[in-house]
Amino acid sequence: MNENRPLILITNDDGYAAKGLRKLVTLMRTLGDVVLVSTDEVMSAKSHSCTIRDRLYVRLMRQEEGFAEYRCNGTPVDCVKLGYQKLTSRRPDLVVSGINHGMNAATTVVYSGTIGAVIEACMNGLTAIGYSLFSLDPDADFDHLDTAILEITKKVLKEGLPKGVCLNVNFPKRSEEPLKGIRVCRQAACRWVEYFKEQYDETGQRFFDLEGTFESDDITPDTDLWALQNNYASLVPTHFDWTAHECIEPMKKYEQISIKP
Amino acid sequence: MNENRPLILITNDDGYAAKGLRKLVTLMRTLGDVVLVSTDEVMSAKSHSCTIRDRLYVRLMRQEEGFAEYRCNGTPVDCVKLGYQKLTSRRPDLVVSGINHGMNAATTVVYSGTIGAVIEACMNGLTAIGYSLFSLDPDADFDHLDTAILEITKKVLKEGLPKGVCLNVNFPKRSEEPLKGIRVCRQAACRWVEYFKEQYDETGQRFFDLEGTFESDDITPDTDLWALQNNYASLVPTHFDWTAHECIEPMKKYEQISIKP
Repeated sequence: MNENRPLILITNDDGYAAKGLRKLVTLMRTLGDVVLVSTDEVMSAKSHSCTIRDRLYVRLMRQEEGFAEYRCNGTPVDCVKLGYQKLTSRRPDLVVSGINHGMNAATTVVYSGTIGAVIEACMNGLTAIGYSLFSLDPDADFDHLDTAILEITKKVLKEGLPKGVCLNVNFPKRSEEPLKGIRVCRQAACRWVEYFKEQYDETGQRFFDLEGTFESDDITPDTDLWALQNNYASLVPTHFDWTAHECIEPMKKYEQISIKP
Repeated sequence: MNENRPLILITNDDGYAAKGLRKLVTLMRTLGDVVLVSTDEVMSAKSHSCTIRDRLYVRLMRQEEGFAEYRCNGTPVDCVKLGYQKLTSRRPDLVVSGINHGMNAATTVVYSGTIGAVIEACMNGLTAIGYSLFSLDPDADFDHLDTAILEITKKVLKEGLPKGVCLNVNFPKRSEEPLKGIRVCRQAACRWVEYFKEQYDETGQRFFDLEGTFESDDITPDTDLWALQNNYASLVPTHFDWTAHECIEPMKKYEQISIKP
């Protein structure tokens, strides 16, 4: 690894073979030295889960000038932990996760393994970005994102990010019209509304399959969903302080509760 | 189930046999009818992960007047989804998760299956509380929490919570001094600092075990960690909007980036 080039740690939650991941590696290698740590299995909806009871195995898959690729049996959060602590020669200048097949806008961030990895990096003081595409197609086209991803990443490498803040960047899928630009916005409150399909297995035992529709009831122009629906990239500054600060003062009345047994 | 009594859905992340869960069931049954949905396995550090690829099986374990107990092969988030959609006769008045063996204060909320369940309920418009004890002891004493848990829960049942906000309540472990009271506070920025212990398995293959120490560098009197260290219960109003709102305006400069290919 070259000390003069940025060191970029990459992971994702779609598994090592995902097209979006390979695109991200290609783009990041033009900006710096890359260490890739991906998971053996697809880890969508694994959120911020990490491995605390099982053994974590890591395998070096490939090594060449400016690039090393590892694979592990854990989650995207494990990949970040292992990556910056055990698999890089120095602290990475940047952690990048993605490019996710499927959007991580609105409240879907809560379930996302891609964003779990980004938050984990951020909690450990590392500069971090998550990139996602609003298409679940395994063969989705990512080429319309090249300039946007390179330029956003260069700016972050140059200027850094505020302490405790990472970026959640989502892109609309390719259309006839070129990307209109970037919108800095808030996470919309829209969410999946799920239902369970009852089914029966070979032995006659009932099980449930989760299905759902996405409910878009919070799409004002300051939201990430509005940006995506209008062919902009959305960029949401994201943090790991989940306190509803505006509620602290009004809820001080809870301090009056008598808890004497 | 009695239509005149509150309907309370309970889950946790320590598995169906956990002492903290059984305590919570006993307490909640004095306040309403209870449906318990717990997991087959211990689900600590499963965060907000949910089952989207595997079959979800649910089994009714016990049913009596005012109480039903189910067990499923999913995560705490799955328990909430299944519970309010498939296993209760009507929408629950309250979802309660815990009592967790181990604190979920500061940034540990990010990893917590207990809090994952609470956030899931909140995202679906349900009133929700998570209770945790600052002790990992499987045989920990929970009796000093009875009054506090009952009184907080009664207040929430009576008054509700602001839209999109749930409660993350943590308790110090039993000491000679009685609980001092309740503090409404913010999530401290303290975090686990981990390291990986390298070990070798029976075949000589290297693996890693995650270990860590908790770094407490943000303990001002307005934080949950301060409350716990000073023998108060901490109550953090918690939400699922991860936007760092204060960064939106200063980051508008990202909208100037040219993304023309």
